Amino acid sequence: MMIKEKIQQAAKALSECGLDCWITFTRETEINGDPILPFLVPGPLTWHSAFIITPDGRARAIVGRYDRATVEETGAYDEVYDFVTSFREPFLDCIRAIQPASIALNYSEGSEICDGLTHGMFLTLQGLLGELGMADRMVSAERIVSALRERKSAGELASMRKAIRQAQEIFQLVQAQIVPGRTEREIAAFMQAEVHRRGLTFAWHPDTCPSVFTGPDTAEAHYSPTDRAVEPGHLVTMDFGVRVDGYCSDLQRTFYVARPGETALPEAVQHGFDTLRRAIEAAKAVLKPGAKGLDADTAARQTLLTHGYEEYPFGLGHQVGRFAHDGTALLGPAWAKYAGKPFKPLEAGMVFTIEPRLSVPGHGIVSIEEMVLITDSGAEWLSDPQVELPVLAGTR
Amino acid sequence: MMIKEKIQQAAKALSECGLDCWITFTRETEINGDPILPFLVPGPLTWHSAFIITPDGRARAIVGRYDRATVEETGAYDEVYDFVTSFREPFLDCIRAIQPASIALNYSEGSEICDGLTHGMFLTLQGLLGELGMADRMVSAERIVSALRERKSAGELASMRKAIRQAQEIFQLVQAQIVPGRTEREIAAFMQAEVHRRGLTFAWHPDTCPSVFTGPDTAEAHYSPTDRAVEPGHLVTMDFGVRVDGYCSDLQRTFYVARPGETALPEAVQHGFDTLRRAIEAAKAVLKPGAKGLDADTAARQTLLTHGYEEYPFGLGHQVGRFAHDGTALLGPAWAKYAGKPFKPLEAGMVFTIEPRLSVPGHGIVSIEEMVLITDSGAEWLSDPQVELPVLAGTR
Repeated sequence: MMIKEKIQQAAKALSECGLDCWITFTRETEINGDPILPFLVPGPLTWHSAFIITPDGRARAIVGRYDRATVEETGAYDEVYDFVTSFREPFLDCIRAIQPASIALNYSEGSEICDGLTHGMFLTLQGLLGELGMADRMVSAERIVSALRERKSAGELASMRKAIRQAQEIFQLVQAQIVPGRTEREIAAFMQAEVHRRGLTFAWHPDTCPSVFTGPDTAEAHYSPTDRAVEPGHLVTMDFGVRVDGYCSDLQRTFYVARPGETALPEAVQHGFDTLRRAIEAAKAVLKPGAKGLDADTAARQTLLTHGYEEYPFGLGHQVGRFAHDGTALLGPAWAKYAGKPFKPLEAGMVFTIEPRLSVPGHGIVSIEEMVLITDSGAEWLSDPQVELPVLAGTR
Repeated sequence: MMIKEKIQQAAKALSECGLDCWITFTRETEINGDPILPFLVPGPLTWHSAFIITPDGRARAIVGRYDRATVEETGAYDEVYDFVTSFREPFLDCIRAIQPASIALNYSEGSEICDGLTHGMFLTLQGLLGELGMADRMVSAERIVSALRERKSAGELASMRKAIRQAQEIFQLVQAQIVPGRTEREIAAFMQAEVHRRGLTFAWHPDTCPSVFTGPDTAEAHYSPTDRAVEPGHLVTMDFGVRVDGYCSDLQRTFYVARPGETALPEAVQHGFDTLRRAIEAAKAVLKPGAKGLDADTAARQTLLTHGYEEYPFGLGHQVGRFAHDGTALLGPAWAKYAGKPFKPLEAGMVFTIEPRLSVPGHGIVSIEEMVLITDSGAEWLSDPQVELPVLAGTR
């Protein structure tokens, strides 16, 4: 069902882009899987396989004999060809029948999610298309693949809402574990056990899902939980997400652990939290179809600078989907490594994180990550935004 | 430890091949992971990252700021550079310092396991090396990557032996489940529960690990277990493997379910089993360093043809390692899709499956898959070969 829906979406995107056909070309997908594959086929493929979609909505598949039944049973392909000894002949026959003037392939310098074709497989295609005099017709399918991943259907959004709710519930439960003496590793283990208990999977590699950072001078990001223990006066921040029906959530929450006698946040912590909330709201206010991610990043980044904080050394927010980091358009600064991503116009149906971060000396990091959906007129929360920084009891 | 060992192995392979440096170039590895990465780094990477190894044994890494600590802690890299906004400058500095005359990259038309570089990332490297006038120095790293994956160390072999033992134990246990009325799906579920109970993971996608085929006219391979039930007179065959410490086993076993009053195998089944055993032994006898995989495939294939069976529509055996299908050299026929794999000379330390298959009309499939290690003088069993076809009780 989802495969059929995505194939129709691809046909529409091909028409919009004036492209004649889109080929996903892959082999031994457990070794080098194109990230687009879950949208095209329900399981792994072994021999050379091609999925060819044209703007008229027709979908053709060429797969090894033993993958034929699996592909046919999707009901999404109008024609399925198989082979035993050589992929070449059915592929050439198929392309000869289509006679495409342009052939979109899954490669992109600027967007990793659209870059699933390996260079070896590109060379193979170049050779095969060369036999037909079509080697100069290959172009990047970045716009097609982006459209498929970024324009979330109602079904995709429903799965993402479930994944967000599950992660939020676990953030609620873990607060009782955040007490002096408890280590980052122990807190992470509690959350992971909760994921298993609920029959969920992690939104990214379990080494850092969740990541947990307590107090000042931590690694800050992308680092596994350590044996560092929570102490009174610590900010404790966590980055966490789960996967439901293949779709991810990706959220960050921050808590404060009271020092003896403390009932409210220290002024510096409160100021940090308020500033971060302001940065998030400023970014969200920018979001709408046609806006650029760069402008949302700038809005948040400037809010931090204006209030005397350093800017965060990363982009403000990424899209979320089947991967925690998904899609092409990015809420990010104009840095070389982000290429064209921050300049790509936003569209309704995109789901972004907003995740600025700042440091409060002596206490730690305030880091909050929310998720929003771009709508026809602006953006709406998918997560329940963290509007308070809880003061957790600092005595056992 | 393993990373350091593999880097030294790579340096040696570079010397053997007369190559000046080997670059693994990747980004967002949870989306497009190069299959070589577990040999180079312990966890996922987010921003553009390069691992550069030279024949003198020096290893340099260039990674995003948040991945620096993880890479440094391996102790395997002599220099680790990090960046926030742009990969370009540290990379160009590093290559300028090395001045390589040849630059090996992870792409290959003929070997998927050596084809981890995406085409988009190839274009990025081409652009960067072009700035140094070195774009014409890029060559395939197929020989380097193959050497790393194929020349198994004592530690790697120890893990594989454990993975084989575990799978064999589960094949032993499952025999009591193979009774008339039991479905393929139920038999698979029993084996999967056993994998979970032992804290193991699957050697390939759990949709087909195990695959289970009972009786005649089944899908034969790469197909999920169905609701088809075991009946007296059925051959039941299973393809299964587990992963221990990251290394796989991959084995097939076949059983016969007696008809009322039957105490021995029907003659046709016995003849099929004996022929298949002969084919396996004939192939094994060919294996030694310097031999070609093609010759082992031919030995088994001819054995089947000579005894009146159809040839199997796939290669006789593949290498096994961190993936169930690993390495470049293959025991296979000279078919277009296998490219140069069946012609690559075998080396000591390679681990292969031997897995011919034949059909016994009215009963089903006889399919056995063993695992062997190429030694200095020949080949030795890693699995305990199936030398009997058990006759299981056909009444409940």
